[in-house]
Amino acid sequence: MTTAAHTPNLLTTKQVAPLGDLELRCGQTLRDVQLGYETYGTLNAAKDNAVLICHFFSGNSHAAGKYQDTDALPGWWDAVIGPGKAIDTNRWFVVAVDALGCVRIDAPHGITTGPTSLNPATGTPYGPDFPPLHVVDSVHAQRRLLDQLGIQRLAAVAGPSYGAMQSLCWAATYPERVERVIAAIAPAELQAREIGFYAVMRDAIRLDPAFQGGRYETQPRQGLATALKLMILLAGGRVDFDLAFGRRPAPAESGHATAMEAWLEQEAHLRSSLCDANAWIGMLESNIRWDLAEGYLSLRHALKGFTGRVLLVPGARDELLPSAHYHVPVVQALAEAGIEHDIYLLPPEKGHLAGLGDIGRASEAIRRILDT
Amino acid sequence: MTTAAHTPNLLTTKQVAPLGDLELRCGQTLRDVQLGYETYGTLNAAKDNAVLICHFFSGNSHAAGKYQDTDALPGWWDAVIGPGKAIDTNRWFVVAVDALGCVRIDAPHGITTGPTSLNPATGTPYGPDFPPLHVVDSVHAQRRLLDQLGIQRLAAVAGPSYGAMQSLCWAATYPERVERVIAAIAPAELQAREIGFYAVMRDAIRLDPAFQGGRYETQPRQGLATALKLMILLAGGRVDFDLAFGRRPAPAESGHATAMEAWLEQEAHLRSSLCDANAWIGMLESNIRWDLAEGYLSLRHALKGFTGRVLLVPGARDELLPSAHYHVPVVQALAEAGIEHDIYLLPPEKGHLAGLGDIGRASEAIRRILDT
Repeated sequence: MTTAAHTPNLLTTKQVAPLGDLELRCGQTLRDVQLGYETYGTLNAAKDNAVLICHFFSGNSHAAGKYQDTDALPGWWDAVIGPGKAIDTNRWFVVAVDALGCVRIDAPHGITTGPTSLNPATGTPYGPDFPPLHVVDSVHAQRRLLDQLGIQRLAAVAGPSYGAMQSLCWAATYPERVERVIAAIAPAELQAREIGFYAVMRDAIRLDPAFQGGRYETQPRQGLATALKLMILLAGGRVDFDLAFGRRPAPAESGHATAMEAWLEQEAHLRSSLCDANAWIGMLESNIRWDLAEGYLSLRHALKGFTGRVLLVPGARDELLPSAHYHVPVVQALAEAGIEHDIYLLPPEKGHLAGLGDIGRASEAIRRILDT
Repeated sequence: MTTAAHTPNLLTTKQVAPLGDLELRCGQTLRDVQLGYETYGTLNAAKDNAVLICHFFSGNSHAAGKYQDTDALPGWWDAVIGPGKAIDTNRWFVVAVDALGCVRIDAPHGITTGPTSLNPATGTPYGPDFPPLHVVDSVHAQRRLLDQLGIQRLAAVAGPSYGAMQSLCWAATYPERVERVIAAIAPAELQAREIGFYAVMRDAIRLDPAFQGGRYETQPRQGLATALKLMILLAGGRVDFDLAFGRRPAPAESGHATAMEAWLEQEAHLRSSLCDANAWIGMLESNIRWDLAEGYLSLRHALKGFTGRVLLVPGARDELLPSAHYHVPVVQALAEAGIEHDIYLLPPEKGHLAGLGDIGRASEAIRRILDT
């Protein structure tokens, strides 16, 4: 018997597309834009089997597979992308793309234009002078990549969280180029309470004396780690934290009172070593700016040009973007706009991160929308 | 017609009790302890009409009334304490007490022994060397004050949040001295997710370069403000934030993108000027240590010596200490211990802070427990 678990690893490489100059929503022009991406599967002759995958806040375009068999972990949506999986790479040509200003700087991820890139006008990194990004800027950049690949129409655009924001923005911005949207843990805008949380994360990074107004020599690791802790707490699941740590004390040698504090410290410091602080702040502010209905009469009006189908994959217990407040308005707008949609509810334990860690549970729902 | 709103202000003054040396739960002895308090109403001859009021995290013993008629605002539970109010000062002698290590340093509040007090052993402020506090330490200190006032038995002990923790701890520690507990937005322990949030607030204060390992000359205001922002976001109500700010932009001159960020900045900086950073960290850690069941077989066992009645006043939408996780175990333990209890659910809009801003809604329930 052959199951997905016994198939050999899907192997991939990071690629980069030079996109030329890109006019941004803020009015500035970003010169000589580069966009990192990966592909899995084969583009057919008709070029109509492409699925675009967009990444979450602290992710990148390594959505599936491994760079080499010895990698500890595959890409972040490997549970649903690969041969025989929900997004079957024997059938679909999957293009996983970076967002502009991607926070990752560790090799081979830090390849897309962002605050650590050299500003062609000065020959030095943009740093804190990198222009403010909107989600739609990444969508425009990704469209250029698809043009280069000769892909006029996407069978689907998909992603979790910030990736779902890009997916919905694709449907609103280029409705004629998108047949299906698969949006996991998807907000249509950031609301007041979360604007506040995102601002606190920015404050924490700026508080670190190493930050130096964004003109740091070395990353402000303490500030980044503090911001990461808050993100981990908001995006994670209360049930998971209770089961894993509860009120258990930490080992005395850890220097922490509780196991929860010790784990949070370790986890945040590990992740902070992968990130750029200015890019993190840029990503936070891009989220704060996120409002799909901006410039339209309503969310329904933003989506009304889209004639394809949508699969929404909310979390049953998303504590970062609670479904009652974030998922319900999207469903309502889709219904009002007469857009065919289906919903698959992910289990509660992992909170918002169910959109990553439990995405495999949505396999049948994903298969179904891709088949129809 | 005369209503409470038309009665003259209840006037009060801050008082201070010298309590001598106090052995703390951590094993250290705190020398020459002072405890700030206020009283409203008159102690009767039998000394059996006393109600003790304990304060929340960033509060103090100014629970009701004004120091002078021109004060902008009365004490924090003034809606339920005063002549003719739920805790009627024509009938009850109300003693509002500080907790040890109270975070407030603004006059006339900063009077109780804490990190800003002079250490009698060195003649300099304790600062970061102030011993770690448990909730029960404040209960022991408050018991000494009651001994001085000749009060052997309390008609009730009451308070919101950290004040409810002290109230429950009173019932567990001195069950023979307490007839009733009124515990609003009351946790019986801090759980893993909130341990994490409290640790992040501590991190934010420590990140401020002005903190200097706790040996600061001037308060680390930026760090305090960042911690306060997080507390404001966690304790406040999503509905309130949406109604007040939504996604509205801030005035250009504010330097902020959104009205939410501008308000949060202003509010946090205002409040940060009232607080001591070491005391804030001490209060955070006292909360992290909070576990009423510690040293007992279970929460039920901690409470089983108590023969009085309990009124629980949870919030319908407490996002700091969600009722499903914090209120339900308390109710279960009370039921298992055979303790008579009643529940009044506060409205959802203000989140956790319903225990302060909407406490007036519980007036009849408070009146009822005090009458029976």
